[in-house]
Amino acid sequence: MGFVRNAWYVAGWSHDFGDELKPLTIVDQKIVLFRASDGNLVALEDRCPHKLLPLSKGKRIGDTVQCGYHGMTFGTDGRCVRVPGQDNLPKSAYVDTYPVEERHGIVWVWTGDPEKADPASIFDMPEFSDPNWHCHHGDALHLKANYLNVAENLVDPAHVSFVHPTTLGSAASEDVPVHVSTSGETIAAWRWIRNAPPVGFFQKFGGFDGNVDRWHYYYLHMPSTAVIDFGSVDAGLNLPEEDRDQGVRIFALHFVTPVTDDYTIDHWMHLRNTAVGDESASEQMDAMFRIAFAEDKEVLEAIEIEEKRPQKRKPIRIAIDKGPNVYRKRIRDLVDAEATEDLGEPERPTFVQHD
Amino acid sequence: MGFVRNAWYVAGWSHDFGDELKPLTIVDQKIVLFRASDGNLVALEDRCPHKLLPLSKGKRIGDTVQCGYHGMTFGTDGRCVRVPGQDNLPKSAYVDTYPVEERHGIVWVWTGDPEKADPASIFDMPEFSDPNWHCHHGDALHLKANYLNVAENLVDPAHVSFVHPTTLGSAASEDVPVHVSTSGETIAAWRWIRNAPPVGFFQKFGGFDGNVDRWHYYYLHMPSTAVIDFGSVDAGLNLPEEDRDQGVRIFALHFVTPVTDDYTIDHWMHLRNTAVGDESASEQMDAMFRIAFAEDKEVLEAIEIEEKRPQKRKPIRIAIDKGPNVYRKRIRDLVDAEATEDLGEPERPTFVQHD
Amino acid sequence: MGFVRNAWYVAGWSHDFGDELKPLTIVDQKIVLFRASDGNLVALEDRCPHKLLPLSKGKRIGDTVQCGYHGMTFGTDGRCVRVPGQDNLPKSAYVDTYPVEERHGIVWVWTGDPEKADPASIFDMPEFSDPNWHCHHGDALHLKANYLNVAENLVDPAHVSFVHPTTLGSAASEDVPVHVSTSGETIAAWRWIRNAPPVGFFQKFGGFDGNVDRWHYYYLHMPSTAVIDFGSVDAGLNLPEEDRDQGVRIFALHFVTPVTDDYTIDHWMHLRNTAVGDESASEQMDAMFRIAFAEDKEVLEAIEIEEKRPQKRKPIRIAIDKGPNVYRKRIRDLVDAEATEDLGEPERPTFVQHD
Repeated sequence: MGFVRNAWYVAGWSHDFGDELKPLTIVDQKIVLFRASDGNLVALEDRCPHKLLPLSKGKRIGDTVQCGYHGMTFGTDGRCVRVPGQDNLPKSAYVDTYPVEERHGIVWVWTGDPEKADPASIFDMPEFSDPNWHCHHGDALHLKANYLNVAENLVDPAHVSFVHPTTLGSAASEDVPVHVSTSGETIAAWRWIRNAPPVGFFQKFGGFDGNVDRWHYYYLHMPSTAVIDFGSVDAGLNLPEEDRDQGVRIFALHFVTPVTDDYTIDHWMHLRNTAVGDESASEQMDAMFRIAFAEDKEVLEAIEIEEKRPQKRKPIRIAIDKGPNVYRKRIRDLVDAEATEDLGEPERPTFVQHD
Repeated sequence: MGFVRNAWYVAGWSHDFGDELKPLTIVDQKIVLFRASDGNLVALEDRCPHKLLPLSKGKRIGDTVQCGYHGMTFGTDGRCVRVPGQDNLPKSAYVDTYPVEERHGIVWVWTGDPEKADPASIFDMPEFSDPNWHCHHGDALHLKANYLNVAENLVDPAHVSFVHPTTLGSAASEDVPVHVSTSGETIAAWRWIRNAPPVGFFQKFGGFDGNVDRWHYYYLHMPSTAVIDFGSVDAGLNLPEEDRDQGVRIFALHFVTPVTDDYTIDHWMHLRNTAVGDESASEQMDAMFRIAFAEDKEVLEAIEIEEKRPQKRKPIRIAIDKGPNVYRKRIRDLVDAEATEDLGEPERPTFVQHD
Repeated sequence: MGFVRNAWYVAGWSHDFGDELKPLTIVDQKIVLFRASDGNLVALEDRCPHKLLPLSKGKRIGDTVQCGYHGMTFGTDGRCVRVPGQDNLPKSAYVDTYPVEERHGIVWVWTGDPEKADPASIFDMPEFSDPNWHCHHGDALHLKANYLNVAENLVDPAHVSFVHPTTLGSAASEDVPVHVSTSGETIAAWRWIRNAPPVGFFQKFGGFDGNVDRWHYYYLHMPSTAVIDFGSVDAGLNLPEEDRDQGVRIFALHFVTPVTDDYTIDHWMHLRNTAVGDESASEQMDAMFRIAFAEDKEVLEAIEIEEKRPQKRKPIRIAIDKGPNVYRKRIRDLVDAEATEDLGEPERPTFVQHD
């Protein structure tokens, strides 16, 4: 159904970008990124307006980019500063620029109308800056799948029992109902599995002996940033929902970036209130996450293939689909609004509060 | 021109299927097969009606199949028996089932209207059960080619001289005319090459010293089961056509299964009245058949590519095309009849008798 | 925009073709070439009119070609001489033939109306037969790119400074204007870079100590034969344009053959007035050319991908585009003329004289 263009999407981690010209594609737009001499990132349309060669095939001359075919050269503002063999610079000689911002080691690119790009609307959460929390950047998972299927998976706690039985889920949660609510541009889907054995992840990292209360809160911020708040605590404590910080708590963040209609990159990382400063724990968690996300990838890529095949009848919808359904409807509304150019200023996504 | 759907197609040999969920595609329908606890084969639509994940990506729970995404579970009758997270089972929660039968180690799936599936119409011949005949299952030949081109090759004795000169044919047969007749849903094309040196196959397996009379009878049963009755006998005996059992006689069977419009699997095997019980002979024959069928594959895949290119003029038809032409016309009639839903009960294919 | 069909295109070097059936594609037509028993090349439509199998999958029987499927056999004039299994030869049993000529070790095929094929119009130049000039055949460069982009690159001296800075160009030429003229069916684009250090190629092969005068004359003969006349001479001599033979002079020839809409083969070779008879020099030059042409290939294939993506705005045109623009316009006129069948006899391409 197309893309939300007036949005900040994650292009990568800060350490992915340096002096060199780095090409990437977001919502079907080819973009070249590089770090200018002042350390700031620059994002330009990755296509020379002359013969269409990607500028990333050219080279940097100071803070300008020279096309590798005939040497047309562009500044960080996208304006052409040189056309070899002539003195005048045609007005049409420019490339688009993209607003780009860095926050907490994450690089965000705005793909819509630059006038509407508000850095204050970039996803943030206080734990990024809290010394009691450990922040660890993970990988970029590449999926041959439409971004909607990837993102809806991240507002869907129910799949965990079946897709990730050895890591993040277990049979104990199979029939626990999922609650769903919305707030601003965020959908929340959550459930508690009370008084059950810890799942693989918390066996390894929680040090739990007996049964735990386990929670899964999935927050999906429009268009495609997911925060999965999950954790465990001794079942005996009977922890109230709002006191989750007293348990072992993880925020798994997924920044879902649509590349093309059938290709998506999920940059994933986490924040945690346990093993703070312990990079060995980070690596072990990454190893476990990689197992789990490879399971998602297999499911989502198989679905992508099936969705392109002829369909005899409409897919059915079941109770646990509420989060995904609300998500798809909201994206459709946003895409439609952009198509009719009636989109107002996007509101800052806010966390849903359940207290 | 599409597929005949009201038909039994070969899914594989009995030994190809066990406890595990095995995905396959027949006439563009994805099907998952497994052997239930009672030993019977079950064939289900390989697509969960919820998010379309192939059920073959899930797992068996007893004789049910659980989807690998959200755990929806289906019985051998295709009905959903469980939707995790809810008590009610929606009426639309089902997958199609396919009639499936085993005969002589061959697995047949009916891809059309289940009401019309008559196990009595499955291809059979008395030699399967005759102790004087040796039955040997071969391979599955995969071809990037439309099934019509594969099947018409099996009612076309004329190609053998040119495509298989070292194994099944020789120059002696190049200009021998081909006879064609039809009977019920079977087309027969045949010729005798009298008093000629034996071809490679019968040099090796017939033990012939001098010239032989050699026959080729191609029976193509609608929609795509071929029986190639070929053999040799000492030329001096002047064997009448109906006494072919007195020579060295082979029935090469080809079960041509359309996978998609441009992909076909040919399961091939044979019955023979020589070297009965000699598995070493079977292996040597398979080796020779593999050479020959690789030659067919090269031809048929090259034609598939050419047929998709622009055509300056209509292909020409020649005398030896009679069998293929009758075949294509009959398939077109069957496909058209199904399209208009006027197809009556398919008649049981019968062998053509030429005595 | 399609192909000019009434033209001689290069199929390869003479040594590429022998007794065997060699398939190739020119302007989307599949052609099989072989050398008949009299040594002359034969070019036939590479598709049997019966079942469409490429004749190159068959075999030669003397100077005829026998189809590998049912043995239909064609003479060097394209007429069918045998249909196995029948006596009569249908009138429609033929394949197209293509006029084919060899000149100086180069094989040319005419892809248009055979009536219009005039061998006198095949590209030639006196240096081929001049003992003071060394003729060396190079490689066939395969490009996943439309032929227009490949050919326009060969009437575009301006790209050399940026695409080939270590071999054929240097920064000294970046802003030197390009002159363009046309004469008959040839476009010329040229410039002199006076009193500059020699580029990599002439450092290696010219033996120059100090600054040189360097020239680049690009002649593009319709539809896609390019002659790049380039060379250097001591700057002190102040050589007039017409006395280029007194310098170290190379004619780099590029025979650009459209294969399909997005695939092109560039057969390249050269003539030179230095290191005559020195095959070691030829090899060293080839090594340098291969570096340069791999640079072109990377640029042209990247552009091919971009041109197929959606375009937000029209590409801009700049001063150095004059040659390419004239070329594209002329090709469009030729293609349009052929489409309306008003094309008269193609005139023989002539060299532009600038004296």
